[in-house]
Amino acid sequence: DLLAAIESRFSSTSDAKPLSGCRVIVTSGPTHEPIDPVRYIANRSSGKQGHELAAAAARLGADVTLVSGPVSIAEPAGVRIVRVSTAEEMLAAVKHALPADIAIFAAAVADWRVATPNTSKIKKSTSDAPPALTLAENPDILKTIAQLRKGRPPLVVGFAAETNDVVAHAKKKLKSKGADWIVANDVSSPIGVMGGERNAVHLLTSAGVESWPEMSKTEVAIRIVTRAAAHLATLKRDAAE
Amino acid sequence: DLLAAIESRFSSTSDAKPLSGCRVIVTSGPTHEPIDPVRYIANRSSGKQGHELAAAAARLGADVTLVSGPVSIAEPAGVRIVRVSTAEEMLAAVKHALPADIAIFAAAVADWRVATPNTSKIKKSTSDAPPALTLAENPDILKTIAQLRKGRPPLVVGFAAETNDVVAHAKKKLKSKGADWIVANDVSSPIGVMGGERNAVHLLTSAGVESWPEMSKTEVAIRIVTRAAAHLATLKRDAAE
Repeated sequence: DLLAAIESRFSSTSDAKPLSGCRVIVTSGPTHEPIDPVRYIANRSSGKQGHELAAAAARLGADVTLVSGPVSIAEPAGVRIVRVSTAEEMLAAVKHALPADIAIFAAAVADWRVATPNTSKIKKSTSDAPPALTLAENPDILKTIAQLRKGRPPLVVGFAAETNDVVAHAKKKLKSKGADWIVANDVSSPIGVMGGERNAVHLLTSAGVESWPEMSKTEVAIRIVTRAAAHLATLKRDAAE
Repeated sequence: DLLAAIESRFSSTSDAKPLSGCRVIVTSGPTHEPIDPVRYIANRSSGKQGHELAAAAARLGADVTLVSGPVSIAEPAGVRIVRVSTAEEMLAAVKHALPADIAIFAAAVADWRVATPNTSKIKKSTSDAPPALTLAENPDILKTIAQLRKGRPPLVVGFAAETNDVVAHAKKKLKSKGADWIVANDVSSPIGVMGGERNAVHLLTSAGVESWPEMSKTEVAIRIVTRAAAHLATLKRDAAE
């Protein structure tokens, strides 16, 4: 079956370096969008899945740039780390890391930022109503890179963290963003995806949807990166023919 | 001078346990106020100063309850830890931990929460404007406990994290909250108070303002807790007379 095939491919190539000579960009963690110097809006994200992806790509021989939002987990060995805070900084860092063969956008980027952050701490006044937060849409990093006319990585992978209608939302995302693959997961799952060690994902490609069983985030990363290496090899072979 | 006096008092009592038999509540870290299952509003706070205060009080013999928001630092030894996420949960945990002889509110509590958090992830739609976030005022934990008619801890200490007019804002806070002491710091200071290891604070009491030199957060904690122990001893002596 499929998983056995992936496993055998991985075990047969784990000593070889199928991504040797390849450049891989991975984003990971949340972004923090400032309200004022002490307050911010954020997404829940430990960065564990993204960091595991970067580590897995490095183990397969890739030259990896990990663009990470604020996280408190250990940095993977053997990768170049660029630390950012906001979505705008993350997009700039990704662009700066191009060109790449594979781009995997696993970060939980805030969709919105506060339009005009206060430069000093907003004071709470007992007489005033709470401040209204006017939000502005953040750049869409996945869409921006997936729709680049020049320098688009040959394989662009997005993540979709959903709490309901997971596959339906992810299918829509695959199409609207122009990504090659979407890795979708149900972050409201009782296995405790957010902050936890395990994940249960669906891989959406042009060929359809594969629903993988629950496994560790390390295993999810190894399987995605191994698949990406195989896909890249196919693309290169097709281009050479 | 003052600091030498404090230091000598500390060194002379560090083997004794001046807070033995005393109950101390410390709050620490930020609160996270949900926007939806994956997004939240937060304050920047590592929890380092609060955790150091709890550790210092425990070393002086106190029975310590540390009510902590989401942090990624190590838990101090010898204290009872109650983990919370939101301001409302933090207030409930503090009330539950009463009675106490000393309450130190070092957490960076979000002043506002989202009035009605979404139960499912808010979808970004390209056609729609960003969602408007209607905020509601959070309970004021310091004020609530400082103004308790029954069961108010004899010593209530608040923290003020400011980015400008630090002492002026803190003086206002001392009065408006009904706290006994306010520990104020300039979180925009170039020493990097937020997330860093060092702090430079002002201690505001009914007697006036003391501006302490920059020191480690551990030292700040030891001095505050040692002062609190001495103050408590004075209160008990006065009450006994």
